Amino acid sequence: MAPDAETGDADAPSLPHLTTDLDDRAARLDAEHSQTDLRHRFLLPDGLVYLDGNSLGALPAAVPPVLRRVVQEEWGRDLIDSWNTADWWGAPGRVGDAIGAVVGAAPGQVVAGDTTTLRLYQALRAAAVLRPGASVLVTDPGSFPTDLYVAHGVAAEAGWRVELAEPTAMPGLLADLTARGEQVAALAFSHVDYRTGHLWDLPGLVRAAHDAGALAVADLCHSAGAIPVGLDEHDVDLAVGCGYKYLNGGPGAPAYLYVAARHQAAFVNPVPGWHGHADPFAMAGEYAPAGGIERARTGTPPLLSLLALEAALTAVDGVDVTAVRERSLSLTAFLRACLEELVPGVDVVTPADDDRRGSQLSVRHEHAYGIVRALAERRVVGDFRAPDIVRLGVAAPYLTHRDMLAAARAFAAVLADEAHLDPRHERRSTVT
Amino acid sequence: MAPDAETGDADAPSLPHLTTDLDDRAARLDAEHSQTDLRHRFLLPDGLVYLDGNSLGALPAAVPPVLRRVVQEEWGRDLIDSWNTADWWGAPGRVGDAIGAVVGAAPGQVVAGDTTTLRLYQALRAAAVLRPGASVLVTDPGSFPTDLYVAHGVAAEAGWRVELAEPTAMPGLLADLTARGEQVAALAFSHVDYRTGHLWDLPGLVRAAHDAGALAVADLCHSAGAIPVGLDEHDVDLAVGCGYKYLNGGPGAPAYLYVAARHQAAFVNPVPGWHGHADPFAMAGEYAPAGGIERARTGTPPLLSLLALEAALTAVDGVDVTAVRERSLSLTAFLRACLEELVPGVDVVTPADDDRRGSQLSVRHEHAYGIVRALAERRVVGDFRAPDIVRLGVAAPYLTHRDMLAAARAFAAVLADEAHLDPRHERRSTVT
Repeated sequence: MAPDAETGDADAPSLPHLTTDLDDRAARLDAEHSQTDLRHRFLLPDGLVYLDGNSLGALPAAVPPVLRRVVQEEWGRDLIDSWNTADWWGAPGRVGDAIGAVVGAAPGQVVAGDTTTLRLYQALRAAAVLRPGASVLVTDPGSFPTDLYVAHGVAAEAGWRVELAEPTAMPGLLADLTARGEQVAALAFSHVDYRTGHLWDLPGLVRAAHDAGALAVADLCHSAGAIPVGLDEHDVDLAVGCGYKYLNGGPGAPAYLYVAARHQAAFVNPVPGWHGHADPFAMAGEYAPAGGIERARTGTPPLLSLLALEAALTAVDGVDVTAVRERSLSLTAFLRACLEELVPGVDVVTPADDDRRGSQLSVRHEHAYGIVRALAERRVVGDFRAPDIVRLGVAAPYLTHRDMLAAARAFAAVLADEAHLDPRHERRSTVT
Repeated sequence: MAPDAETGDADAPSLPHLTTDLDDRAARLDAEHSQTDLRHRFLLPDGLVYLDGNSLGALPAAVPPVLRRVVQEEWGRDLIDSWNTADWWGAPGRVGDAIGAVVGAAPGQVVAGDTTTLRLYQALRAAAVLRPGASVLVTDPGSFPTDLYVAHGVAAEAGWRVELAEPTAMPGLLADLTARGEQVAALAFSHVDYRTGHLWDLPGLVRAAHDAGALAVADLCHSAGAIPVGLDEHDVDLAVGCGYKYLNGGPGAPAYLYVAARHQAAFVNPVPGWHGHADPFAMAGEYAPAGGIERARTGTPPLLSLLALEAALTAVDGVDVTAVRERSLSLTAFLRACLEELVPGVDVVTPADDDRRGSQLSVRHEHAYGIVRALAERRVVGDFRAPDIVRLGVAAPYLTHRDMLAAARAFAAVLADEAHLDPRHERRSTVT
């Protein structure tokens, strides 16, 4: 073995190398990316490699003290006054603007609250108002189930036919429909495929939609907070997303809706609550929508959850989403390299191309469920997506290249030990 | 003065009486009702007389430790596993059943989550499905604004005409409509008028609705937790309510929807999310509604808020809503007596009749806003409802007859001092 080059002491005893090349690479990459290592801002259990932040983001250290203050002081002590003194009333718009900063929306276009389901319903109903007379809705059959359910539901209400196409086939389909003289109301797509981790070409899809006279409606659940979105820059019309994945807002954290400023005057809220009224405290019997994005508000928002989300958004203060994305690309590229080196024949279905890869790696395996359970026993938490996907989500702010290597080693060990075939790992429910 | 009758000591020095007759009555009534005094289960500031629990219920002592556990252990430590290990998945139904126990609904008919606005939207859309071909919706012009907005919105979608009538006039209107051969889809009403505190005749309204072939849709925001409702007993069809008033679930606590078991098979959720799917983890592209009330679920519920509500519901464990109601009736009757004795000419618009009085007293006064502000400076918190109502909500579990007397004395002092005319008390926003 070569003498220790750093000390230059040719006489030093030759110690066995305890690290491999992959360890060295992990350490070097972690050092290169130390500026974006925000693990210390999250309260994650020691020794856990948490690769499910694309299902439920980890707990930011900023959340518990804020929630204590909200509960004990704002609710318990100041009670009803907090609507004014703590500006509870302004929370949906304030949190919306904070999310807007993450997804490239100027202030006044995003409102937080309700569920992604409801926000999708509002977005597609708005499309029906904005494109009267249209006859088709185009969406992706690989969308998250809720997106498909709401798409079919609103289509039935609006009298639209639903045409399904993978995002890569959408521009061609839109051109065909246009050539046949059909008016498409909207192109609804997810920015990242929740199962495979494909990152779709958002700017290209928006252009294709607009070329067909259709609105572009984007679901950002699996990109917001992990990947720059550029809603304003790319002229997206409507967008929705949840608060509990890469935004780390906690279980069931409120969702959000983006309505581009140019569409707000015509936006009609199908679920009109008094929080979206132009003069809510007049308690008028007639609905008059507020100006701007506020008209998309429904009823009183769940403030404990909403203010936890607001606190969670501060966990990445000082590190913008472009830097998060750079870290994520390095982590997922390294995870792929480790898996390919350590797990012979591994079938990674997520694209290798940086421009087409979301913030996760999905591995196809016939025993995917057993692998996920066996990994969890080794303190590597990913998740399973039917029928055969091991999903390894990479929430970059709190993960390191060492974590990637640890995950790949655990994956290899599970297969080597045949732990994934253990009958204890029978299929049970998991949640996105 | 008479010698102290209790000691029978005719020679005892005659001390000046420090208490009035009202003080004596308050003390006696508090002693009589000591079994239902649950103030110790709430974290209310000392010295505060909080008469706004019908807007935002006080903080139950049970909530902070539960929320700490949910945040630190379930979210922070157990992460995604908590969907199973802490049964987050079951929370909407579990909390729904707990609310059902309060409003007289057998298990499996109430689901918690979302906002009252969304729940109303679901209820009225369901009425459209259950009463195809109907042409009229009857509702109360004094309903809370959101109720009217949703009623008008769904009516426009369903092609219904909206007929407005005070609840006392509803049976006559329904009879007239029926006589004219018109099919009424639903009678939508609030159990208690949020401004005046009128408690309407729920059983009579349901009978009138059913006589007309219409569904009875009740808003329980101002009765649930304060007044026995008897949803099952009185054959209510659909009902909604919020979690943050007399249920003490915290700011914006999730709402709930009741769908009577007999209507569930035909219930169609207009906002179909994957949480309401028959087999949610199959991630199927086609929507197939779950059996029972679960089909009314939308997307992932805001669990911090939902589990805070669940903890809050335990604050009245061991004291059923009938006992809460008895305490409330005593408190509001005594408050009325104190106001009438101490505030000459006071105009209490809430009915004196126990059968027609909600759990509040509303006082009409041209300077209502100034009175509310001046009362707050004296640590008596009520609220203002435009244009001229001082609303004194009586959340019985954490209030005493002494509190009622203190509130009436503060009211009298405000008027005597003309504190309500102080220019500092200019109108600003308040929130229900």
